[in-house]
Amino acid sequence: MKADAGRFFEDFGLGEEIRHAVPRTLGEADAAIYTSLTGSRFPVNCAAPVARSIGLPGVPFDDLLVFHIVFGRTVPDISRNAIANLGYADGRFLAFVFPGDTLSATSTVIGLKETSNRQAGVVHVRTMGTNQRGEAVLDFVRWALVRKRSEGSRAPVPVVPDLPSSVSPARLHVPTGLDTKGYDTAASGSAYPWDDYAAGERIDHVDGMTIEESCHMTAARLYQNNAKVHFNQFAEASGRHGRRIVYGGHVISIARALSCNGLANAFRIAAINGGRHVNPCFAGDTIHAWSEVVEKLELPGRQDFGALRLRTVATRDRPCHDFPDKAPGGAPDPAVVLDLDYTVIMPRRLG
Amino acid sequence: MKADAGRFFEDFGLGEEIRHAVPRTLGEADAAIYTSLTGSRFPVNCAAPVARSIGLPGVPFDDLLVFHIVFGRTVPDISRNAIANLGYADGRFLAFVFPGDTLSATSTVIGLKETSNRQAGVVHVRTMGTNQRGEAVLDFVRWALVRKRSEGSRAPVPVVPDLPSSVSPARLHVPTGLDTKGYDTAASGSAYPWDDYAAGERIDHVDGMTIEESCHMTAARLYQNNAKVHFNQFAEASGRHGRRIVYGGHVISIARALSCNGLANAFRIAAINGGRHVNPCFAGDTIHAWSEVVEKLELPGRQDFGALRLRTVATRDRPCHDFPDKAPGGAPDPAVVLDLDYTVIMPRRLG
Amino acid sequence: MKADAGRFFEDFGLGEEIRHAVPRTLGEADAAIYTSLTGSRFPVNCAAPVARSIGLPGVPFDDLLVFHIVFGRTVPDISRNAIANLGYADGRFLAFVFPGDTLSATSTVIGLKETSNRQAGVVHVRTMGTNQRGEAVLDFVRWALVRKRSEGSRAPVPVVPDLPSSVSPARLHVPTGLDTKGYDTAASGSAYPWDDYAAGERIDHVDGMTIEESCHMTAARLYQNNAKVHFNQFAEASGRHGRRIVYGGHVISIARALSCNGLANAFRIAAINGGRHVNPCFAGDTIHAWSEVVEKLELPGRQDFGALRLRTVATRDRPCHDFPDKAPGGAPDPAVVLDLDYTVIMPRRLG
Repeated sequence: MKADAGRFFEDFGLGEEIRHAVPRTLGEADAAIYTSLTGSRFPVNCAAPVARSIGLPGVPFDDLLVFHIVFGRTVPDISRNAIANLGYADGRFLAFVFPGDTLSATSTVIGLKETSNRQAGVVHVRTMGTNQRGEAVLDFVRWALVRKRSEGSRAPVPVVPDLPSSVSPARLHVPTGLDTKGYDTAASGSAYPWDDYAAGERIDHVDGMTIEESCHMTAARLYQNNAKVHFNQFAEASGRHGRRIVYGGHVISIARALSCNGLANAFRIAAINGGRHVNPCFAGDTIHAWSEVVEKLELPGRQDFGALRLRTVATRDRPCHDFPDKAPGGAPDPAVVLDLDYTVIMPRRLG
Repeated sequence: MKADAGRFFEDFGLGEEIRHAVPRTLGEADAAIYTSLTGSRFPVNCAAPVARSIGLPGVPFDDLLVFHIVFGRTVPDISRNAIANLGYADGRFLAFVFPGDTLSATSTVIGLKETSNRQAGVVHVRTMGTNQRGEAVLDFVRWALVRKRSEGSRAPVPVVPDLPSSVSPARLHVPTGLDTKGYDTAASGSAYPWDDYAAGERIDHVDGMTIEESCHMTAARLYQNNAKVHFNQFAEASGRHGRRIVYGGHVISIARALSCNGLANAFRIAAINGGRHVNPCFAGDTIHAWSEVVEKLELPGRQDFGALRLRTVATRDRPCHDFPDKAPGGAPDPAVVLDLDYTVIMPRRLG
Repeated sequence: MKADAGRFFEDFGLGEEIRHAVPRTLGEADAAIYTSLTGSRFPVNCAAPVARSIGLPGVPFDDLLVFHIVFGRTVPDISRNAIANLGYADGRFLAFVFPGDTLSATSTVIGLKETSNRQAGVVHVRTMGTNQRGEAVLDFVRWALVRKRSEGSRAPVPVVPDLPSSVSPARLHVPTGLDTKGYDTAASGSAYPWDDYAAGERIDHVDGMTIEESCHMTAARLYQNNAKVHFNQFAEASGRHGRRIVYGGHVISIARALSCNGLANAFRIAAINGGRHVNPCFAGDTIHAWSEVVEKLELPGRQDFGALRLRTVATRDRPCHDFPDKAPGGAPDPAVVLDLDYTVIMPRRLG
C-alpha cells in the first residue's frame, strides 16, 4: 500500500535506527510565524542587535521551534498511531539553529514494553536532530503509547531504558562563542539576572492565553506534525474526547512564552530534564503557567552566565497565583496540563 | 465611482485582454505560511538540499501556491461577482518560481454564454501568469458563473471554447536544468518512484484535515483573493448557504497536501487537465482525499522521470477507504467536493 | 516580584521617559503574515518593481504594521492594565522601514488625569519609534484609561496636553528619494490619482471582513502586544463584555485594507491626525468601512504627489453604502467602531 498508515507497536524493533523523512530548511519566516502563534518575546530571538550583543552571528531560532521541527520529522514514523505522548527525558539543546539551516532527524528505538491489556505498548526513542553540516542541534528521549495492530501479536521482551532524572551541568552544552557581557537587560524588560533567582523560588507568570483550533492546527502544520488527533474533527468526534487534541508541544510553547514574564532573561533552553503532558488540552482552554526554581547551577568555567533548573507547570482555565500542583498524596491538580522540568541559561550580573 | 464593485457578466467582451492589478513579489515567508496552512511536506518544497539535488538553484514555491497567487490577481476583475467557479482546463505549470520573483497576471476572455434564466452567464478566461522577466509560469483556463447586472440586458452570441480533455505529454513543460538523478526517496519517506505506479491504481490518502474559518480566510488573504463570499459572514448569513464558502483553491491545496501520503515523490504538478468544485465546502468540514492513476506517461526524451495523470477526489466528512465516486448513473457521491484531473512529474527508478 | 503585572495609574509620573523593552527586527515574513491577516493589496507594499518605480530600494513595510510593532513595544509599560485605548493624535510616519530594520520605542508621559470616580486615570504618552540607526520612523500621541492600584491613592495635578487637531502639511514627512513619476496606476487597479479626489467626497469601500478570534490574536501576537483583554477568554468571561476584545489596531488595519478599494493609490500614511475606537469589536463582527476626503492638501515643493486628509469610519455588521455616521446631535451610529482621521500621500497626474 503506497499510503502509509503509520507504524504500530509491532513494527518497532529494539535498537532499530529510523532515519526520518523530509528534511526541512528553516527561514526567518518560520520564526515570525512562531511569534505570531505564541507571542513569545525573548529578546535574543526577536532582535538582531541583541543576538549579536551576546556573540551570535544573527537571530537564532527559538529552541522550542527547533524542538517542534525535529519532533515533527519523527511523527510519521513514531507516533501517527500514538494514543498519547507520555513523556520526555534527557533532552539537550546543542548547536544554535539559524535561518537557512536544514534540519533532519534520526531516532533509535531504546525501549519497548507492551501494556498489560495487550492493546498497545510503550515505545521509547532517542531522537537526534542535525543540521546540514551534520552537527547535532538537539538530542532527546521521548516515549509514547502506541496502538498495536492486533491484540494477539507476540509481545517483545520488555525493555524500559534507564534515564537520568536530569541533565547534569557537565553535560549542558554551552554554544561556542557565546558571551553575555554585552547583554543589556533593558532589552528584555526584566532587571533580574541569574544572581537574583533562588532555589525554591516560585513565579506566577500572570497572563493567560486561550487556544483556538486554527492556532494549534497551524502550529502543528508549521512543524509538519501530522499526528491524526490534531486535525481530523470528523474522526475525533467519535474518539475518546469527542474533539481534536492540541499538540502538547504547542502547550509547551505557550507556557514558555508566558514564562517570559518573570524569566525574560532565560534566553536559552539548555536541557529538557523531564516532562509530562498531565492532561490533554483542547481548543477553548486558557493556559496559565507558573514556575519553580528547582536548582541554581553554576556552569563549569563560566562567570558570565549560569543555569537554572526550572519546573514550569501549565494549567487550563485556572490562574496560577496560588501555584496549583500535586496534592500531598501525589495526584496532580486536575487543572494541570503540563509539568515540565528543564534547564535554562541566564546571564549573570557583571563583576 | 472610485470603489470597484467588480465586473458583471455584461462587462466582459469576447477576446478582451485584461491586465490584472497588483503584481506580487513572493518571498520565503509565503511558502512558510503556505506550509502552516496546509501541512504540505513534499520535500523539494521543504528543503534546499533536496531542491539542489534535482538541479534547482533553491527551493521553488509549491505549484499550487503559484496557482493561487496568479488566481488571486484575477479575482477583482473576473470573479468578484461570481456565483461559482465552475471549472478549470488546459492548465500548464511552466517556469518554476523562486523567492524574490514577482508575479503578474493577464487574462483573455475566450468564452461567454448567458444562462437560460438570463440572470447570469458563464465567462471563460485563459489566464497567463508571468514573472518579472516576462517568462510564463502558469497558463490555464477557468470558467465561472458571473451575475448579470440586469436581467434585461442583451445576451452576447454564445461562445464556449473547445478545450482539450487533457494536456498532451508533448505540451507538458519540463523545467530547464531539472535532473532527478540526485533525488533520494529517503527524503520523501516514500520508496515508490514513477515505475511503481500503474494505470488504474487507486490510493486512499488516509488522513483528514478539518477546515476552520480563520484558516481558509488566511489562505485567501495570503493570495489576495478578495472574492466576497469567503470573508463576509454578515452578508453570507442571508446568502444561499447562510455562511462563508471556502475558496475552492484551498480545498485543492488540502487535497494535494493529503496526497503526499501515497504520492510523496510527485514533486511537481505539470498540468491541470480539468477540475470541478463539485460541492461547496464550509468551515467545520473535514477533507479526505483519494487518487486514481488515470494514465502513466513517458516524457519525450527523458529517462530520469515520468508523468502520471491523476484524478484526485476530495470529500467532506467522509473517509475515502472505499473511494467514494460517481454513482453508475454519473451523479457524484454527495460527499465529494473536488474532482481534479492533473498531471504530476515523478522521478523514475535509476537504471 | 519578578513577573510584571503592569503599571497602574499611580505608577506614571509626568515627564517620565520610558524606554520600552524588546527591540524587534522585522523581516519579509512579518509583511507576509500581515498580508495574510488583512488581505491588504496596496502595490508599493506588495511588489518590489512597484516600490522601486517610486524610488525606494525595496518593498517597505505597511505603515500600520510599523505602527502596531511600535505600539506593541509600549503595551507592557503603558496599557497592560488599560481599560480602554481612548484615542490617538499628532501621529507622523517618518522614515520608511525595510526588512532587516530593528525597531525600538520610547514613550514620554505628557498627561495624567484621574477620573472623577477615582478608580482610574487617563494617561497621555508621546511614543517615538526608531530604527537601529536611531532614525525616527514614527511619532504619535495616544491616551488610555488606566486602572488605579487603589482608589484611595492621591491624584496627581491633572494635566491634559494641548494637541493639534491635525498634522499640518508643513509637518508631514516626505521620505527622501521618493519620486512618483514612475508610478503606474495599472499596478493598483485604480485609475484615480490625487487630482481626481475632491474635499467632501465620500467613498463606500464595499467589502466586508469578518474577524475570527484566532485572526485577531495572531495579529496581536505578531506585534507582541500582550494586553490581557485580547487573549484570555477565561478571565474575560467574567469581564465587562464576557469575551475577548479585538485589538483596536487590527480594526484599523482591516479598515485600511478594505479602503484599498477606492483609495488604492494612497500608498503611504503620512499622519494620524486623530482617532477613536468608538466601540469595542469582537470576534464574529464583520467590518465594513467608508471614507470621506476631509481636505485636499498640496505638499510644499512637490508636483508629483499630494496629500489627502481622510476620515475612515468602520462599522460592525453594518454595510456602509449610506455612510453611517454621527447623528445630528453628535452621538455616533451604534454600529460605528472606528473613526480615524489621517493623511495619506498619493501620486498626482503627470503633467
